[in-house]
Amino acid sequence: MANPVLVEVTRGDLVESRHRGAIAVFDADGAVVTAVGDVDAPVFPRSAVKAIQALPLVESGAADALGFGDRELALACASHSGEVAHAALAASMLAKVGLDEQALECGAHWPFSDEASRRLARDGETPSQLHNNCSGKHAGFICACCHEGLPSKGYVGFGHAWQLRLRETMSEVTGVAHDEANAAVDGCSIPTHAVPLRALAAGFARMATGVGLGPARAAAASRLLTACMKEPFYVSGTGRMDAQLMEAGNGRIFVKTGAEAVYCAAVPEFGVGIAIKCDDGGTRASETIVAAVLARLLHQDDQLARRLYELAQPGVPTRRGAVVGQVRPAGELAR
Amino acid sequence: MANPVLVEVTRGDLVESRHRGAIAVFDADGAVVTAVGDVDAPVFPRSAVKAIQALPLVESGAADALGFGDRELALACASHSGEVAHAALAASMLAKVGLDEQALECGAHWPFSDEASRRLARDGETPSQLHNNCSGKHAGFICACCHEGLPSKGYVGFGHAWQLRLRETMSEVTGVAHDEANAAVDGCSIPTHAVPLRALAAGFARMATGVGLGPARAAAASRLLTACMKEPFYVSGTGRMDAQLMEAGNGRIFVKTGAEAVYCAAVPEFGVGIAIKCDDGGTRASETIVAAVLARLLHQDDQLARRLYELAQPGVPTRRGAVVGQVRPAGELAR
Repeated sequence: MANPVLVEVTRGDLVESRHRGAIAVFDADGAVVTAVGDVDAPVFPRSAVKAIQALPLVESGAADALGFGDRELALACASHSGEVAHAALAASMLAKVGLDEQALECGAHWPFSDEASRRLARDGETPSQLHNNCSGKHAGFICACCHEGLPSKGYVGFGHAWQLRLRETMSEVTGVAHDEANAAVDGCSIPTHAVPLRALAAGFARMATGVGLGPARAAAASRLLTACMKEPFYVSGTGRMDAQLMEAGNGRIFVKTGAEAVYCAAVPEFGVGIAIKCDDGGTRASETIVAAVLARLLHQDDQLARRLYELAQPGVPTRRGAVVGQVRPAGELAR
Repeated sequence: MANPVLVEVTRGDLVESRHRGAIAVFDADGAVVTAVGDVDAPVFPRSAVKAIQALPLVESGAADALGFGDRELALACASHSGEVAHAALAASMLAKVGLDEQALECGAHWPFSDEASRRLARDGETPSQLHNNCSGKHAGFICACCHEGLPSKGYVGFGHAWQLRLRETMSEVTGVAHDEANAAVDGCSIPTHAVPLRALAAGFARMATGVGLGPARAAAASRLLTACMKEPFYVSGTGRMDAQLMEAGNGRIFVKTGAEAVYCAAVPEFGVGIAIKCDDGGTRASETIVAAVLARLLHQDDQLARRLYELAQPGVPTRRGAVVGQVRPAGELAR
């Protein structure tokens, strides 16, 4: 069964492109609130689960020992744009354990932000691993390893003790085993494990409510999600969808994007977690889906819902700025 | 009916993302050679039909009068990467009619080529309209207007005489009316008209064979496709799929990409034209589809087919360059 069309891209009066996908909205007990399409198929969550992967950084006491505040914790959960402040904060996290960019094993790439890339180029520089969108997560891993007395070298490997701890944490929070059978390698070289959208949604409901996590983990989860909602720039970057959604939500919405059109989110006041995957990996579609799903959930707040629908329906511009089409929710996702 | 899955993206042992689409391979009489998915639905061909839109530049005598060679004609059919040579050639075309970048109405954008963008930034510059991937096509329109004694100002507008001529040409070559009913606005501000893939494929079969075009148009079509095949860099840019496919084809393959995952192509020796649209607009998928379709058509040439299959199946790398997945043909497109 094909997943339904959830997003369409118009040009003039016609639909030019269509995106299919699946949506899971679940509570912390694993009960369905909304399910559209196949929510049982395994999906690599990629960067959308960084907040869960950051739990051991807090639970181990490393974050406190190193004096990490909301910004550092947000960066540990981030796919940042490689702007100056992002790279600098990742460097300062590493400096707290006496290390630098050389300790990272994520690889370098030009910043997600075109503006940041051009600024680097203008300054005659090339990107370092600090500009990798995952550098905050990796810095968090390294800091936690150092705090725990583990060698940080090789921390990205499946067999490293920290990856074992991440697998245990991910398995407990999502309720699905993370092992070699569902593992592949993420773009930043760490393992990623394919699990059903329903498990990811329930996992984020647990992160948002603490239900089923135990008190220490519940406190760590709350602290991480709160940090992200307070410092959305450090989770993403200037003008990015994650930042815009969390700014609009003003503490009521947690969201995190992942590569290949995954989105995880939570609305703590409703006790629900959300997980989305657009079949084709198109980020514009997963952004529209998550914004539209949040707009529906929060429809009683007129002003917020209006802003979320606005984010769900960006215009398609010409190179001269005229709007000649639209990305918009479609099918059962349309109002 | 949903179009079939034609491309899948793997990570480890699992399929991470899937792309659906349709494929039309038709001859110049409009007879089907291969049809996969819905080849009757209207599709905006976007930049994939630039070679057809360049016919009046040649037919009017403007190209000869201005001394345009293969490179200028290739650039008139191009979605170029905004590299130095592209921008310079577009400027030199305009200079032949005493005009400059100011005459263009395509708008400016940073070059498709990240390398070219960073070079501009490094030099403290910002992009001009010459860097717009469509600047060669627009320069061709302007040059033809000047040659024909038409005002070039407003040449992008639906009501301009040159757009009328382009509509007539497109209607004749594809056999489908181009009018207000199927029009929208392209990213470079000119009209684009939605027509079935079968009509686009048949149109490119006519372009490649001359069948049904009349001698003058057949000669112009041959000259344009030959120019593109001889100068693939000027149709696209360093490392781009169009360039790689035409370099591999060495005069046997014409291809042209369009935004939102359209591809048009032709194999003159077989008298066929090809038109492809990936439903979701994902360019990686349309690239894999066109390369795989060409590999099948040209399967008797082992070496060429091998290269085309290689282009159809790029690896998915980590930021450190390890290959951890693959984009590949799927379903009925898989070998």
